[in-house]
Amino acid sequence: MTRGRFITLEGGEGAGKTTQIRLLADALIGWGKRVVLTREPGGSPGAEEIRGLLVSGETGRWGPVTEALLHTAARRDHLERTVWPALEAGHWVICDRFFDSTMAYQGYGLGLGRDLVAALQATALGDFRPDLTLILDLPVEDGLARAAARRGGEDRYERMDVAFHHRLRDGFLDIAAREPERCVVVDAGHPVETVEASILDTVTRRLGAS
Amino acid sequence: MTRGRFITLEGGEGAGKTTQIRLLADALIGWGKRVVLTREPGGSPGAEEIRGLLVSGETGRWGPVTEALLHTAARRDHLERTVWPALEAGHWVICDRFFDSTMAYQGYGLGLGRDLVAALQATALGDFRPDLTLILDLPVEDGLARAAARRGGEDRYERMDVAFHHRLRDGFLDIAAREPERCVVVDAGHPVETVEASILDTVTRRLGAS
Repeated sequence: MTRGRFITLEGGEGAGKTTQIRLLADALIGWGKRVVLTREPGGSPGAEEIRGLLVSGETGRWGPVTEALLHTAARRDHLERTVWPALEAGHWVICDRFFDSTMAYQGYGLGLGRDLVAALQATALGDFRPDLTLILDLPVEDGLARAAARRGGEDRYERMDVAFHHRLRDGFLDIAAREPERCVVVDAGHPVETVEASILDTVTRRLGAS
Repeated sequence: MTRGRFITLEGGEGAGKTTQIRLLADALIGWGKRVVLTREPGGSPGAEEIRGLLVSGETGRWGPVTEALLHTAARRDHLERTVWPALEAGHWVICDRFFDSTMAYQGYGLGLGRDLVAALQATALGDFRPDLTLILDLPVEDGLARAAARRGGEDRYERMDVAFHHRLRDGFLDIAAREPERCVVVDAGHPVETVEASILDTVTRRLGAS
């Protein structure tokens, strides 16, 4: 059994991750891959319960260290119960947000710093890393405007101030610059089909799928 | 304002922590201290929600790393919302279980090892430590028999095998041996009044209360 591949999509609010994940899944299925779609926080029964604590309620409900710990706990459960078994079974796993979001939101956005978040990731992941991380990048104001148009109940992060969202974007770009062999920045300001074509081209070049 | 003191009680199932905490609180109040009673996991609204995920459900519900992360998240919330503000306000805080329980249950009992758990504690606590930790020690079989007599719904740990409870007891004793300036082992096999007298004597000697 060939091990599957693990692709994560990252980016700020309104970058179009959900749409692009569906399009990428369709393409991979068309290329004969078995595909598992998942998301963080969540993606397993236990992690979805932890997600419920994270995504609703007041902005200051959790301190940033507590929040990073909860994300890391949910991630570990998600890996053990969903991601690792799927990869072992040969599936391609596409995940909507992964540990780069914890680094960007808590490490950069909320000011915890890289070291504390990196130590948590080491606890949860060991040496495991995504095979490919697509970072959908968009100017902050454009992303927030898009996110506002579809606002639901899970908007605790969207309601944070604009300076936070600038730190978030800069954080994602810094992560990509530090790990170019894993991360690819995708300009999410283009039309959906253009972004889709860019992503499929990247997946083909990096992971050999077509 | 004089900072308060932080006293933690630790031990396996059925060691009598709840009874002794109440007796210690009564004594401290009689000595003119303002006392806050709290417990882990829990002790703040957010941490109690996390506790709900931890103490019920099947034995294998969470993997040991996930479980340690959830305990650490709850601990951080508990410290920020309850313990640290109370100590700043001059209260004496008595806590039913604290990080030594994570070290004993997950580090020793479930085999995660000291290093991983110590790294998590560093994330949640920084340099903060209890002023005094009382470890109520009892032979495993005696503790389980006592715990069975009061069994409620929150018995996930009690249902683990006897070998686990032996690793747990040995873990607590090892923790105490490594930090004798913080930890005192109390023989919990004596009658309630004898254990109470031993604890009050220790608190007087170590923390100057009387």
